Amino acid sequence: MFDHTLRDTATRVQALLTDLLQPTPGDDEIARPELLLAAMRHAVLNGGKRLRPFLVVESARLFGGNDTAALRIGAALECLHCYSLVHDDLPAMDDDDLRRGQPTVHIAFDEATAILAGDSLLTFAFDIIAAPETDLSDRAKTALVLALARAAGMGGMAGGQALDLAAEKQAPDEQGIVTLQAMKTGALLRFACEAGPVIADASLEDRQRLRTFGALIGRAFQLADDLLDLTADAATMGKATGKDAGRGKGTLVGLKGQAWAEAELDRLVAEAVALLAPYGARATTLMDAARFIANRKS
Amino acid sequence: MFDHTLRDTATRVQALLTDLLQPTPGDDEIARPELLLAAMRHAVLNGGKRLRPFLVVESARLFGGNDTAALRIGAALECLHCYSLVHDDLPAMDDDDLRRGQPTVHIAFDEATAILAGDSLLTFAFDIIAAPETDLSDRAKTALVLALARAAGMGGMAGGQALDLAAEKQAPDEQGIVTLQAMKTGALLRFACEAGPVIADASLEDRQRLRTFGALIGRAFQLADDLLDLTADAATMGKATGKDAGRGKGTLVGLKGQAWAEAELDRLVAEAVALLAPYGARATTLMDAARFIANRKS
Repeated sequence: MFDHTLRDTATRVQALLTDLLQPTPGDDEIARPELLLAAMRHAVLNGGKRLRPFLVVESARLFGGNDTAALRIGAALECLHCYSLVHDDLPAMDDDDLRRGQPTVHIAFDEATAILAGDSLLTFAFDIIAAPETDLSDRAKTALVLALARAAGMGGMAGGQALDLAAEKQAPDEQGIVTLQAMKTGALLRFACEAGPVIADASLEDRQRLRTFGALIGRAFQLADDLLDLTADAATMGKATGKDAGRGKGTLVGLKGQAWAEAELDRLVAEAVALLAPYGARATTLMDAARFIANRKS
Repeated sequence: MFDHTLRDTATRVQALLTDLLQPTPGDDEIARPELLLAAMRHAVLNGGKRLRPFLVVESARLFGGNDTAALRIGAALECLHCYSLVHDDLPAMDDDDLRRGQPTVHIAFDEATAILAGDSLLTFAFDIIAAPETDLSDRAKTALVLALARAAGMGGMAGGQALDLAAEKQAPDEQGIVTLQAMKTGALLRFACEAGPVIADASLEDRQRLRTFGALIGRAFQLADDLLDLTADAATMGKATGKDAGRGKGTLVGLKGQAWAEAELDRLVAEAVALLAPYGARATTLMDAARFIANRKS
């Protein structure tokens, strides 16, 4: 049931992203250069799980938010997520040739095009939120732009990547790792869950609750990722694995051990699920999402 | 008089940007990594002329818009402009070591930090627009986010840079050059002029008029730039010059000659100034800005 819902949303997101990344320029655009657009499509239309859009859609559904608008916010978030992968894969950054079993953008195209495709996807995320086709109040759009910018910028994801690069030179302590991961992967997942109540114009209390839920599953996501990095092989992951340990990057799994990490993962999921208990059966899908994130094998 | 007004706004923008780029994280930010922030400050706090913020402030003033809010939108635009310079200077792009007489960000820091500083400045631009401290209606903020995203993204500035890189391999024809330049440099200048009426909640007709004014001075800006590249030396410009011709990049000056370009520059300025005639003496500063852009020596 959960798998079906996840796949169904992924299909809808893929269709919307395909539609959004068409060659015909939108209002106020002069032209969409063919090669740049091809690189953006390569980065985005890649059959990902679309976990972040799924969380947006489900967290909006919990409060009766406009589903079509939620899908568009999910697509915006996915563009932003994909930009971060394109830039993280660059030679000057993590230098990865492979992503989801396909050549990364700077390999399939070139480095300059990869930089610009990432820049354009980041910019496009804000375009999609603010566009007239997104059927939300200006108040909701402004709140979403602000929350996404904070989650993605120097105080969130981009800052987390900067800390991650620094961690290669000097291993952070436990608190340093927690901060790094909350920024690098946690912030966007937190945004995904917080976006729903904003879309639905739910109460501040609901927004705060979903925000905390998002932060918890963000931590679970990263722990699961670090455990996978330890145990999975490259074929399962569709990307290079075992790199974190090889580069001496600090992870909580490395610092506190696999047994601790597995127990902590269970604890985080339990805490996340308990947070949603007041919503009853309506929250079943989001609760399943928390379990899925902890137990995923790729 | 004009020079004084330009410098005065530059001083105010510099103070605001200095304040915005402080180490203390804002609401919803986890931390601002020191090195990343230093790179962002290096990119932004560099004593530029702040022409784009100036145009925002003056175009808002023309319609009685909130001056403090206009300055913040100008600061947002300057962050976005500076991001584009940081990324354009990267080795994979234009590979420039010098910018305004200072080492570029990837030289002063490293390539990864330069990529992330650019990403963060781009993201921060949208943060500043949407932030509660920006005293504008949500309607105006949404319109500004959309217009800036379109001006900066694949159908605007970033797309123009992609076309510019392609032009190194195959020289574009006249129409191709016009499109490239309208995207690469024109779109942001157009946004700067259009932002004013949006900030002031002026009529659609006023917005359209300022938009056309912005497009005209965008073309003038680029022609002046190409003429300077032909004639100025690196010491005056604070960056490498003569590179366009050296790389075989097509410019209208190269295609149609210096005499044509100088006459066209005069024509564009006259047209831009005439567009603002209905506003009478109130538009004097913006008219002077058009002349300044055409006649600048650096």
